Amino acid sequence: MQIKELRVNGKRLRESLERMAKIGATPGEGVHRLALSDEDKEARDLLITWLINLELHVTIDEMGNIFGSRPGRNNSLSPVMSGSHMDSQPSGGRFDGILGVMGTLEVLRTLHENQVVTERPIVIVDWTNEEGSRFSPAMVGSGVWTGALQRDWVYSRTDIDGRRFEGELIRIGYKEEAKCEKWPVHCYYEYHIEQGPILETEGRVIGAPKGIVCLHWYDVNLKGEANQVGPTPMEGRHDALCAAAEMILKVNELPEHMGGNLVATVGEIENYPNSRNIIPDKVHFTVDIRSWDDDHALKAWEVLREDFEGIAARRGCPITIEETWKVQHSPFDEKLVERILDTADQLGYPNLHMVSGAGHDASYMNQVCPTAMIFVPSIGGRSHVEVENTSWEDCEAGANTLLHAILQSAEER
Amino acid sequence: MQIKELRVNGKRLRESLERMAKIGATPGEGVHRLALSDEDKEARDLLITWLINLELHVTIDEMGNIFGSRPGRNNSLSPVMSGSHMDSQPSGGRFDGILGVMGTLEVLRTLHENQVVTERPIVIVDWTNEEGSRFSPAMVGSGVWTGALQRDWVYSRTDIDGRRFEGELIRIGYKEEAKCEKWPVHCYYEYHIEQGPILETEGRVIGAPKGIVCLHWYDVNLKGEANQVGPTPMEGRHDALCAAAEMILKVNELPEHMGGNLVATVGEIENYPNSRNIIPDKVHFTVDIRSWDDDHALKAWEVLREDFEGIAARRGCPITIEETWKVQHSPFDEKLVERILDTADQLGYPNLHMVSGAGHDASYMNQVCPTAMIFVPSIGGRSHVEVENTSWEDCEAGANTLLHAILQSAEER
Repeated sequence: MQIKELRVNGKRLRESLERMAKIGATPGEGVHRLALSDEDKEARDLLITWLINLELHVTIDEMGNIFGSRPGRNNSLSPVMSGSHMDSQPSGGRFDGILGVMGTLEVLRTLHENQVVTERPIVIVDWTNEEGSRFSPAMVGSGVWTGALQRDWVYSRTDIDGRRFEGELIRIGYKEEAKCEKWPVHCYYEYHIEQGPILETEGRVIGAPKGIVCLHWYDVNLKGEANQVGPTPMEGRHDALCAAAEMILKVNELPEHMGGNLVATVGEIENYPNSRNIIPDKVHFTVDIRSWDDDHALKAWEVLREDFEGIAARRGCPITIEETWKVQHSPFDEKLVERILDTADQLGYPNLHMVSGAGHDASYMNQVCPTAMIFVPSIGGRSHVEVENTSWEDCEAGANTLLHAILQSAEER
Repeated sequence: MQIKELRVNGKRLRESLERMAKIGATPGEGVHRLALSDEDKEARDLLITWLINLELHVTIDEMGNIFGSRPGRNNSLSPVMSGSHMDSQPSGGRFDGILGVMGTLEVLRTLHENQVVTERPIVIVDWTNEEGSRFSPAMVGSGVWTGALQRDWVYSRTDIDGRRFEGELIRIGYKEEAKCEKWPVHCYYEYHIEQGPILETEGRVIGAPKGIVCLHWYDVNLKGEANQVGPTPMEGRHDALCAAAEMILKVNELPEHMGGNLVATVGEIENYPNSRNIIPDKVHFTVDIRSWDDDHALKAWEVLREDFEGIAARRGCPITIEETWKVQHSPFDEKLVERILDTADQLGYPNLHMVSGAGHDASYMNQVCPTAMIFVPSIGGRSHVEVENTSWEDCEAGANTLLHAILQSAEER
């Protein structure tokens, strides 16, 4: 068989995904597989069994990142790396992250059963704690590996019950000796669901993001004045929740007001004392702004900040704002992105040059080696929820695209 | 000494209040004395000691209500009753409720030391669980006593930790044999802080509410569609928090829009999944509407409901509304209210005919006997918070007004 006629086994890929979806399965057909939980351990154990069956050389590092290496003809050359993560959001979906690990596994199984030998080695990776929903922040496995985050700081992070990251890593048996630090990688691919509706809306099967949008997180705190609601006239109230409500709508209107590539969201709010007959005297809420254009996002924030300050002053609710996280937009390697679009073309899959609105382990990998991603459609654009779904045909198409992108990179001298 | 020259001992009243404020004292100079807690028990024990020292006949009923009876010349006549409650809001104030119990105690002490004998008996009362913040709903002691609430239903109410009302009543040793049911009362006075800013703003010392405003509670639930915020375009989002924000502002604007006597508040909101990078797909919030005019409140609600339905439809966030509680406005006994204003005049205290924006045990008592309340100013209008405060001079003025109102009622044949 000609290499270019090689295809993954879509049925086997589906079986791998369905098997993994049983680990932490929720009644709503999602998965609840938080980082360093018993479910995470179970998924890791199963992955390692599968990697060993493929005769890969498996290593686990001190952050619990799992690598499976397939030798090439010339093992002095740096490997092609491909993977993603296996942890999920709380009551999250069956495809987010795991598709990239199972997709790469399927690529390696296809090479194995066809006895294909590549010039360069190929490494599959499962990064620890990409979601950041149990232990904040997100993407710490790749973050420490690429040198962007400090290992000991990540170790000291605690979950909502006060359990330390390091303790939980030890508890599930995935803290090993190997240093978590980067070694030479020829290029990095990450195959992932889109988590948005663009591919579906545009009727495309494969997306190749030119990069990841910038991300700005803010934490806003408002002070009001608590009082019994009945005897307190409307005039003279300092209702922190009303001030927050005005601000939430300003955030929602911002993208239309500013134009250009921009999304802005308030996802989290806490109200105090949160009693139906007491005027709220304290509100915390978050702002998430993303754009392909860093300057545009900053300008949008300046507009928003002025609005916030005006509202706070008018309502007599003092405001404090914390700039919690700022990540610049991250353009992927142009040649690699082009390769994905070309590969999809050759395979006959309608494809789209787009942007990624979400952060991925690929964001950190992009800082240390040529990186690109492969997206497949999310049905209804839904993600981070139990109904997250992608058709099996699209899963297979993405894996075929990954297979041939990897094959090309792995032949480069 | 002429009876009309009789005055309470302001210093002693202050000492009683300060002594009680030590029970459940908070660092912020408030009190945390939830119904049926250890602190509630301690305050009850102390009150009973004080009542016995006054040679009152003390009875406790099966709801834990405490009565202290002072005989009159003619004990076949129904007594004058006066009191309030000793439980507090979480981290609440040092005056709410307890002022009415300590004020009545001070009246009885004044009569005792001056050997004043009245025609009718006088009864001091401490009603169980007025606040309703640990065990919902509020005002259950007076509610069961007046026949408005069922004892066994109240017994079955649970706190946030699942502990039953009845079990906690037994635990603190305040479930006694005596039936909790009304007996003939000549009239009921309740002395209380205003919990609003009107008296202070108007420069008056004594307020006599003509009654208590109506109260309508609604629970609103919105459904949205959760998605990863980054990859989800603004267009087509169904953000339940944005819908709620629009509604909160509509509630806030309602009183100005409708005119007349009306306040409207959103005090409580819960947002789901409440994660900064997920579009909110479920929001619950409360609406509290109060007015002296029941019809006006209902009309306001109809306007609001239409606004809500329009917002929900436009944002594609299905809405469900529960009408949680509805209490009609409650006019007090006109002659008794007039007596309080006249008494304050005679004592030289600037006074005001007003309304009560908050519910009190007096609401239930008003259903079974002539009832009136005496208000004194809340500094800055603050209540249900640690900084709740009333000047000692005003506390004394209120107690003097109560003394002479009680004396007049207790002489009625």
